[in-house]
Amino acid sequence: MNARILFLSLILAACTASPEATEIADPTVPTPDFVLTADQTHNKFSSAIPAVVRVPSGSVIEAFTEEASDGQLLADASLEDVVNLDFEPIHPLTGPVYVEGAEPGDILKVTLHEIELGEFGWTAIVPGFGFLAEEFPDPYIKTFEFQDGDVTADFGDGIRVPLKPFPGVMGVAPATDEMLSTIPPRANGGNMDDPNMVEGTTVYFPVFVEGALFSIGDTHAAQGLGEVCGTAIEAPMRIVYEVEVIKGASHIQEPQYETEEYYAVTAFAETIDEAAKKATRYMIDHLEATRGMSRSDAYALLSLAGDLKIAEVVDVPHMLVTMHLSKAVFDS
Amino acid sequence: MNARILFLSLILAACTASPEATEIADPTVPTPDFVLTADQTHNKFSSAIPAVVRVPSGSVIEAFTEEASDGQLLADASLEDVVNLDFEPIHPLTGPVYVEGAEPGDILKVTLHEIELGEFGWTAIVPGFGFLAEEFPDPYIKTFEFQDGDVTADFGDGIRVPLKPFPGVMGVAPATDEMLSTIPPRANGGNMDDPNMVEGTTVYFPVFVEGALFSIGDTHAAQGLGEVCGTAIEAPMRIVYEVEVIKGASHIQEPQYETEEYYAVTAFAETIDEAAKKATRYMIDHLEATRGMSRSDAYALLSLAGDLKIAEVVDVPHMLVTMHLSKAVFDS
Repeated sequence: MNARILFLSLILAACTASPEATEIADPTVPTPDFVLTADQTHNKFSSAIPAVVRVPSGSVIEAFTEEASDGQLLADASLEDVVNLDFEPIHPLTGPVYVEGAEPGDILKVTLHEIELGEFGWTAIVPGFGFLAEEFPDPYIKTFEFQDGDVTADFGDGIRVPLKPFPGVMGVAPATDEMLSTIPPRANGGNMDDPNMVEGTTVYFPVFVEGALFSIGDTHAAQGLGEVCGTAIEAPMRIVYEVEVIKGASHIQEPQYETEEYYAVTAFAETIDEAAKKATRYMIDHLEATRGMSRSDAYALLSLAGDLKIAEVVDVPHMLVTMHLSKAVFDS
Repeated sequence: MNARILFLSLILAACTASPEATEIADPTVPTPDFVLTADQTHNKFSSAIPAVVRVPSGSVIEAFTEEASDGQLLADASLEDVVNLDFEPIHPLTGPVYVEGAEPGDILKVTLHEIELGEFGWTAIVPGFGFLAEEFPDPYIKTFEFQDGDVTADFGDGIRVPLKPFPGVMGVAPATDEMLSTIPPRANGGNMDDPNMVEGTTVYFPVFVEGALFSIGDTHAAQGLGEVCGTAIEAPMRIVYEVEVIKGASHIQEPQYETEEYYAVTAFAETIDEAAKKATRYMIDHLEATRGMSRSDAYALLSLAGDLKIAEVVDVPHMLVTMHLSKAVFDS
């Protein structure tokens, strides 16, 4: 029985267990209209990958995700497993989902209603990969086990890492039928590895192909801003999300997102410096388009209250930077 | 009467006013041993600048600071004032303070006990300066007035910016008698422009010359991470800080800082990418030195819980990046 089946079986067992073991459903989480299992995956971004399901705008989807290695690294992973890691299966993404009515130029709005961590995770230093790859030539692995209600991961030696589960990859299909690697993030989103995209976040994607073709995966139980060693706590999860097509919206060039507290833009580039410049421009564009601010007023306001944040520095060749602006600065 | 005198006069007036107008001193703020006025300034970093006061380790200093332009931009500043801005007087820094016993290789610990905002501030876009300088060729100015108890700055049009006052510049003298510009941050600190260095923060500086020669200034009432347009809300302030020499400490290469919640390292470089790499290395060094962690364990832990943060992207030619690590991850 492989890990994904084990995980799914345990989830299903939990759902059908005796009444006293059944969790009371969170009333704020809508009931899923569609369920995608953790073996309904692909591992490239391309307009040529057929959808696994076709859904109306407004649908709620429950998606099970595999961890990033697609079962190569499990709860008992060894250093040898890290040395032998094949990058080709990375990252298995659950989807794509064809959203009816979505056309190029539209925006796909994705709301992360619920993110539930699976039962294990791993963190590795993979030789040749990571922000300081030349200084860390040796393989490294640490595995974790999780139980319901855990709020930290046991790193050992009295160190406990707060759990903040989120999907490292969310993206729509690009406007090409080439089979693109899922390692770098691009304008279609993808491997953004932004630890701020947690439960409760709404993400907006520019749509490049009919149906949008949305996929999700590479779920992370915990990750710092940067993901410096190249991996987070890579762990399977269950995610309930909602998709909605926004027609005739002003175009955005790369994904943007928001919570009740802030609005954020994302920007990728081959250097952090260039990504930071793009993010600053995107937020100025946003303030000009949505609030009618002059570009100079927007630029000055962002100097006082806009926060440039590094998301990841390891998904070569693309770094991802975001800019956040608190909604509290506006009266309405 | 120029702005610095006006500001000082008002502060002194407030302190000597009738009993009902006297503020009750915060009992957690130690009584100052020394007072430095806002005209006891210099505007270069150099070992050749004589100290304005000589104090024992453990002294508490009350320092009044001028805003960054040294009185060129006041509460009634115009666009013409911005066009005519002379960079030569930037930044007036209160000090230097000679701390007895400090020698090269020691650490100077500076605790920011209290930061009190003055009565006005300004934000400008200065042609040729700023992260997107080529896209914003025109001068821009916005001025602000503050009253006791204000928690936001009125940006106009219903926009209010939260006030988070901090010193943009804190630094010790470098190991050179050259007169260095105060625009870029360096290993001695200086223009770090890190909005996390607020009241309550303790900053550690490597000492390069006898007496350390500490200076403070360029006080900011509010600034986002990045300071993208090149200026914050530049405002005069009153700061109460404590200096302490730490002898025989393990050497740090650039300033580091902490609060009750986290420990942080800073790193400057000509690109954000290189500064981020240095910050990651410094935090690995810190975990190895203070907790005996292996470098691989430290690198992996920082990938899960260390946050790379941009401080400023405009103090050419040096960008400043920090890495924060929550103290909550450790049992002790």
